[in-house]
Order: sequence, then C-alpha cells, then structure tokens
Amino acid sequence: MADARDEIDALIGQFSRLPGLGPRSARRMVLHLLQRRDQALRPLVMALDRVAQTAQPCTRCGNIATAPICDICADPKRATGEICVVEDVADLWAMERGQVFTGRYHVLGGTLSALDAVGPDDLHIPQLLERIVSEGIREVILALGATVDGQTTAHYIAESVEQTGVILSALAQGVPVGGELDFLDDGTIGAALRSRRAF
Amino acid sequence: MADARDEIDALIGQFSRLPGLGPRSARRMVLHLLQRRDQALRPLVMALDRVAQTAQPCTRCGNIATAPICDICADPKRATGEICVVEDVADLWAMERGQVFTGRYHVLGGTLSALDAVGPDDLHIPQLLERIVSEGIREVILALGATVDGQTTAHYIAESVEQTGVILSALAQGVPVGGELDFLDDGTIGAALRSRRAF
Ligand SMILES: [Zn+2]
Ligand SMILES: [Zn+2]
Repeated sequence: MADARDEIDALIGQFSRLPGLGPRSARRMVLHLLQRRDQALRPLVMALDRVAQTAQPCTRCGNIATAPICDICADPKRATGEICVVEDVADLWAMERGQVFTGRYHVLGGTLSALDAVGPDDLHIPQLLERIVSEGIREVILALGATVDGQTTAHYIAESVEQTGVILSALAQGVPVGGELDFLDDGTIGAALRSRRAF
Repeated sequence: MADARDEIDALIGQFSRLPGLGPRSARRMVLHLLQRRDQALRPLVMALDRVAQTAQPCTRCGNIATAPICDICADPKRATGEICVVEDVADLWAMERGQVFTGRYHVLGGTLSALDAVGPDDLHIPQLLERIVSEGIREVILALGATVDGQTTAHYIAESVEQTGVILSALAQGVPVGGELDFLDDGTIGAALRSRRAF
C-alpha cells in the first residue's frame, strides 16, 4: 500500500500529536473523516483553513483574534479599568463562559516554572506593566491556577506591579459550585474555611 | 466577540462531532492548533486537504484508495484466492496490522442489524458473491465481530455463498494473546475451551 496509506498515516500522525489524542483515537478520527468526505472531511478542511488564514494573537492582550486587536480589546464597553490576568487563552475562554467579568484580559502565555525553565522574560509581564499605565488600569485580577507555578507567578506579578499603585486581587479559592466536600482535598477545604463569609 | 469566535466555535463544533471527542476536548484541540498556526494548524490543513482530494472507496473491495482500485486489489501477489470479509475499513486496517493475511478483502460497510434497520441490501453482499465467481475465490474468511449482529451477518453470508461451493471459515475465538483468564467473560472462556487444541 504505497501512496494512499503514506498520506493517511501522515495525517494520523498529525492528529495523534494533538492534546488528548493517541495513535488509536487519531486513527478512528481519520477513518471517520475518510468515510464521510463530503459531510465531514471537506467542511472541516474549509473551517480549519478559514481559521488558519485569519487567526492571530491580539497584539494587546494575547487573546486569539482575526485582527491585530481582538474583539474584547476593541469593545469600548469593556474599558472598565480592570484587567484579568490569565495563563493562556483556554483560561480566558473559561472566564468568558463564566459571563461575570466585564473588563479586559492579559494572557501571560504560561506560568513561571523552574522545572521548565520559564522565566519572567518568557511571559508577557512587561506588557502588563505598560498596559496598567497606558490604559489607566485601577485593578488587576489574578486568575491563575492554584498550583505551585501559578502561585509563584502571582507573587512575582504582585511584586512587579507594586510600584504602579494598582489594586491587586485574586480569584477566591473555595468549594466549587456543585462540589461535594467529601471529594475535595484538604487544601481546598482549608482555603474555603479561611475565606468563609457571613451567611 | 463577533466574527472570530463564530468561526472558531464552528470549528470546535465540527471537531466535537468526531468519534471520541466532546465539546471540551474539541475546544482544547482547536486552541492547541490556533496557538501553533505554522507548526500544527497549516500542516494539518494541507494533509487533510490532500487526503480529501485523493481518497475514495475502492470500487472492488471498499477499502480506502487513491485510485478506483486500491493498492491491495491492484497487487498481483495478493491474488491468493482468499477473501477476508470485514465489517469496515477500521477492521481491514486491524487485519493488515496483524501482518498474517496475504489475500484480499471485502468491506461489508456494516453488519445486519434489526435495531438499526440494516438489511442485506444495505451491505455489499451481492458484490461479494460476484467476486467469488469472477476472481475464482476458493476460501472466504469471515472476520466479523463476536457480537449478535456480527454473528447474524456471518450466518447470512454463509447461506448466501453456499451455492458457490466456496470454503467458508471464520476467525477463531479464544483467549487474546496476553489476556488473563481472570478478566475474560464466560463466553470467551467457553469458546476457547470448545476450540481447544492438542498441546
Ligand atoms: Zn485583545
Ligand atoms: Zn480494493
């Protein structure tokens, strides 16, 4: 099986490098597409191609955009003086699904990590400081993961923005909505207790 | 977020309809691609497009091909007088990975199913009968699943090919290589016992 299988194998290889997919699931996906050329494969090619031609990082916040400035940064209603700092675009999307935050974002592009040798210069922290000044930001909300790297990054940002006089806050830690205490780790329960509020 | 998010959401929707992917994993995949436009997204578009333009079902056996006749059907070394009947192309690929079968295939395109209203006319059974005659086939090997539908289909094919005088066989049932008895269902153990061989 010369040519056909080579091309199909190459395609399976590309799919299997995507997050959450292994060789077996990639094979199943490719086979599904091959057997539905007009209903699934061609529309997928067109949708991917459209996005590949237009998608680019927002030069201001790092969100994915179809123009140099993303829809959120371009929306004057979102100039609330608040910037929410997130690790990556996935977290920005998660915040947007929450439909609570009405300000703008700043995507760091990762967290500080000694293990992965990610230092401050690898993240978009200088740009955050510039934005605090140029956009007249009053409050920076840290929406970073409750991990060692996330918290190290939070502390580094706290030090970096100190001289700007901006208000710095962070997402509350506590019991997730719908979460059962029984299934929570002790750290979460402790954090939820410390942040308890009048009822 | 007008245009950009609409296109990206449409793309996530297409990915989430692929087997094994839900909205969450589709979102992660799309985000991964968007953040790696040149290293991952563009090469994937090109590979998919190439396959979309060339892939077609083999008019003889139903395998996926880049020509009207697939590489296996076109290979004279595989004219062994044996046809292996499989449910779909995934099973053909699985047989080929086994590297034991040297004949040709016939892809049924499914199994008979009362529940899903799949009758004999929906499968490529008439074409199998034609091939038995025109290709001078001596043996038909049924490689169908050990499911109710798979076995119903096997029995239907057995009746259909009876008058051609072809030898009909089926894959052995038994303990999978590396399989522990403890984890096998009773049906498999029973089948393995009935098919026991001298040691
Ligand atoms: Zn932006
Ligand atoms: Zn063929």
